[in-house]
Amino acid sequence: MTSPNKPLILVCNDDSVYAKGIKELVEVASEFGEIVVVAPDKPQSAKSHSVTLEHPIFFKPTDNFGGHTAYKCSGTPADCVKLAIHQILKRKPDFIISGINHGSNSSVNVLYSGTLAATIEGCMHTIPSIGFSLLSFESDADFNPAKPFIRKILHHVVTNSLPPGTCLNVNIPNIEAEKFKGIKVCRQTKGVWAEEFNESKHPSGRFNYYWLTGKYINLEPDATDTDIWALENDYVAVVPIQIDLTDYKNFQKLTILEQNN
Amino acid sequence: MTSPNKPLILVCNDDSVYAKGIKELVEVASEFGEIVVVAPDKPQSAKSHSVTLEHPIFFKPTDNFGGHTAYKCSGTPADCVKLAIHQILKRKPDFIISGINHGSNSSVNVLYSGTLAATIEGCMHTIPSIGFSLLSFESDADFNPAKPFIRKILHHVVTNSLPPGTCLNVNIPNIEAEKFKGIKVCRQTKGVWAEEFNESKHPSGRFNYYWLTGKYINLEPDATDTDIWALENDYVAVVPIQIDLTDYKNFQKLTILEQNN
Repeated sequence: MTSPNKPLILVCNDDSVYAKGIKELVEVASEFGEIVVVAPDKPQSAKSHSVTLEHPIFFKPTDNFGGHTAYKCSGTPADCVKLAIHQILKRKPDFIISGINHGSNSSVNVLYSGTLAATIEGCMHTIPSIGFSLLSFESDADFNPAKPFIRKILHHVVTNSLPPGTCLNVNIPNIEAEKFKGIKVCRQTKGVWAEEFNESKHPSGRFNYYWLTGKYINLEPDATDTDIWALENDYVAVVPIQIDLTDYKNFQKLTILEQNN
Repeated sequence: MTSPNKPLILVCNDDSVYAKGIKELVEVASEFGEIVVVAPDKPQSAKSHSVTLEHPIFFKPTDNFGGHTAYKCSGTPADCVKLAIHQILKRKPDFIISGINHGSNSSVNVLYSGTLAATIEGCMHTIPSIGFSLLSFESDADFNPAKPFIRKILHHVVTNSLPPGTCLNVNIPNIEAEKFKGIKVCRQTKGVWAEEFNESKHPSGRFNYYWLTGKYINLEPDATDTDIWALENDYVAVVPIQIDLTDYKNFQKLTILEQNN
């Protein structure tokens, strides 16, 4: 399972081992190395970087990926990566890739995404990691137009690695192959969800319940260097993301808090 | 509930409305404004920024906070903040504070923490937000030595606000009052969890299960400008954190991906 000559590529996602997107990602990634899939056994969208502390988790083999070694895991995407690295794999993977997510993880959605949490968890373990998302929530979305770009990005990362502490958030527009303009390296768009909850009365009549819905608001619609701009203009959006959340830009002005220590 | 003259302070956490830490935070924060608590009805540690999509959530009043308006919510910490802003509160809160968490959220733990997710969610909504954590997992931890520092930080933020897009991750050592050296504004320590799972056989005997445990490894033990250094040297560690994950430092070298577009 872990030939020393071929790169070992761990594949995860948050839509579960049964999603079309992860099968399509395995198909492309298998051109670049040996694949092991460790992914959730049920959908784990919007689980962010949560890890399971309150009960144990388990994994079982799945034959859902043809000849590739694959396991389904009862935990979150971050659990899957931890379990793969510390328990399942015989050696540290050379690369971690996550996706292809069914739906966008651009802008602030990177913070809610389980797909990107698997990527960030890989980055924490100093493994070059990439999260891929297609802008379609359809379960039978067409991933074919996206594949040349996934191939190009994988080729670059397998050949050149990534700077330590950096991983990639790749979002791909859901358009026909001939419409793509190429790849754009861009920054995370400032945005927010204007959440409107659907409010309904509980069947008991005693209280109301609320179902999360809402619409995304782009707070900088005129900017042309953002991931949302790239996607709206038929580019594949690649945002280099970091795991150090420190805001160095505003660091100095906050040292006023040290006064009168 | 929402006097226009006093700042409206939303209080959340991830240890639930029943934790001692949130009661102690309300006690200090009520000196600075009108308090509304919206916090989970059960522990939600390590839930990160997950939000509940797969089923509806609800909230109910709780009289756990004396005279202060307070609700317990069936969702995650990020759900609580969203529900408070969009459904419960009559106006947008002026400040959001989260905690006091029972246990550290320093270094990379910021990414796993529900307490900090509530803070980051507030920051996304352009509300000055702070997460507080005490380095003790004890349910009856002594929060009194921490209070003068919480008061100082709250006073600063209520008076001066915070730069947009920046929130604060405040970790406080669990030491006696006279040992504190003051506040240190510092950066997030590079670190990783060397997770070792406890492996046991399932009662059925048919498979093994794995319980997450592990030990934190400081990858830069000699650095003196990190939050871990500050905490180990009896300082309150304040890390300004940002919601833009873009890695600008390594941005330029990745534009090579745009070649042959």
